[in-house]
Amino acid sequence: MFDRRIAEVAAAVSARLDAALAPMPGEIGAAMRHACGGGKRLRAFLVCEGAALHGVESAPALDAAAAIEAMHAYSLVHDDLPAMDDDDLRRGLPTVHVKWDEATAVLVGDALQSLAFDLVAHMALPAERVVTLTAGLARAAGGRGMVQGQALDIAAETAAVPLTLAEITELQAKKTGALIEWSAQAGPVMAGAETGAMGAYARALGLAFQIADDILDVEGDEAQTGKRLRKDGEAGKATFVSLLGLDGARKEAARLVETACEALSGHGAEADCLRQAARFVISRQS
Amino acid sequence: MFDRRIAEVAAAVSARLDAALAPMPGEIGAAMRHACGGGKRLRAFLVCEGAALHGVESAPALDAAAAIEAMHAYSLVHDDLPAMDDDDLRRGLPTVHVKWDEATAVLVGDALQSLAFDLVAHMALPAERVVTLTAGLARAAGGRGMVQGQALDIAAETAAVPLTLAEITELQAKKTGALIEWSAQAGPVMAGAETGAMGAYARALGLAFQIADDILDVEGDEAQTGKRLRKDGEAGKATFVSLLGLDGARKEAARLVETACEALSGHGAEADCLRQAARFVISRQS
Repeated sequence: MFDRRIAEVAAAVSARLDAALAPMPGEIGAAMRHACGGGKRLRAFLVCEGAALHGVESAPALDAAAAIEAMHAYSLVHDDLPAMDDDDLRRGLPTVHVKWDEATAVLVGDALQSLAFDLVAHMALPAERVVTLTAGLARAAGGRGMVQGQALDIAAETAAVPLTLAEITELQAKKTGALIEWSAQAGPVMAGAETGAMGAYARALGLAFQIADDILDVEGDEAQTGKRLRKDGEAGKATFVSLLGLDGARKEAARLVETACEALSGHGAEADCLRQAARFVISRQS
Repeated sequence: MFDRRIAEVAAAVSARLDAALAPMPGEIGAAMRHACGGGKRLRAFLVCEGAALHGVESAPALDAAAAIEAMHAYSLVHDDLPAMDDDDLRRGLPTVHVKWDEATAVLVGDALQSLAFDLVAHMALPAERVVTLTAGLARAAGGRGMVQGQALDIAAETAAVPLTLAEITELQAKKTGALIEWSAQAGPVMAGAETGAMGAYARALGLAFQIADDILDVEGDEAQTGKRLRKDGEAGKATFVSLLGLDGARKEAARLVETACEALSGHGAEADCLRQAARFVISRQS
């Protein structure tokens, strides 16, 4: 059920992104389209499934899903820059600064962030809800959200002492957790409903996702993941695996999946797809 | 009158930015504060003066003014990067990538763009108007606005044929004009009023501003402008001065100032400060 649903969402959100990106001119436009291609579309899935769970129509849900995928794509383009993680491979393709150049990669990320807010601002919803989504997205992405997480991650590379478990948990809650939480809460916000359960679900799922990422970095296959692996170990960075061991990390991820599912206890079978998504994030091979 | 008013606005918007930036943690926070310091605050002035002209309260006007200055500051930090214009001096101080490093400069720009949308989303205004301001800001900043202008500017550096006057006019309308136009229209948007006159004023003022910038690049003093000059001539780039000559450029800027003032013909003495601002942009020494 989950497989089919995320494939449907991925196709729909890619079409929505294609439409939003089509008018973007020049090489920047081409590079924006390159940056937004592929990916699991997990964030889009969370938006669309959370929206469906709360009875929201698919048109505004797809706008919000496209917005968060544009924001996510911007963060990847900038993270891959030589001055940041210096990655040449992403989603199985050359990164933007490799295929084009650094200036283009900076501008593409900048324009994709603007596009995310553009998409949210044009959603067919009561204006109050659009403003709530905009404010939440700005906080999640900004200097106390995703950007702070990325800055903490870069600082950790040159820190004299490896990060503690609490510090890594905090870092990841900002770096990847903030956008995941926005995604899961977008549905209830669009519906004018309570966001507490979806927020708790997303916080547990986001952390489980990151632990699975650290496990994949050790055990995964570059051809399957479409990105460079084994960089954290080489850099001597603390990860959930280095701190908990492989087995401990697996157990913690499984525990978080249970926490995520428990957060949905107020919903019946209609939330099963979200429960499956939580199990998927720790079993995925890419 | 204009001198006093822009100084008042500069002080007020700097205080508003300080308050918004105070919670930003770590080195990124420090670098964000550095990037938002100084400057003429022309965009903030246009917001606040346009707001006053349309009877808008000062609190939301200052939020919008702080937002556009954060957006402008982000664009300067990224434009100054080694992969872009490679500038080491801005507003008389070392640029962010010189004082910190490139990764910090990328992240500071990213976080300042988010902050701009954060500030707009928290304005005390009817939600419909907040959404209009958000949508306009996203368009002005994005891949068909400021980012496109910057991309065209970079492409011009390596183009086989220098740009024509029409091409430079188009480039500048995007690169600097789009944010200036948003600034001038923010007042009427906040008031729910017509934006046509302020839009026409801003388009003429923005282009006059850029022509004056090209004149300053030839005639200006680095100590007074606080940034590197004579780079365009060295790079062999077409500018308004190279295409029109110094005298022709001065005449065109003066003509545009008249156009800007005529756009305000529906207003009386209460718009004199905006008329003075138009004259200021072509007489400034920095």
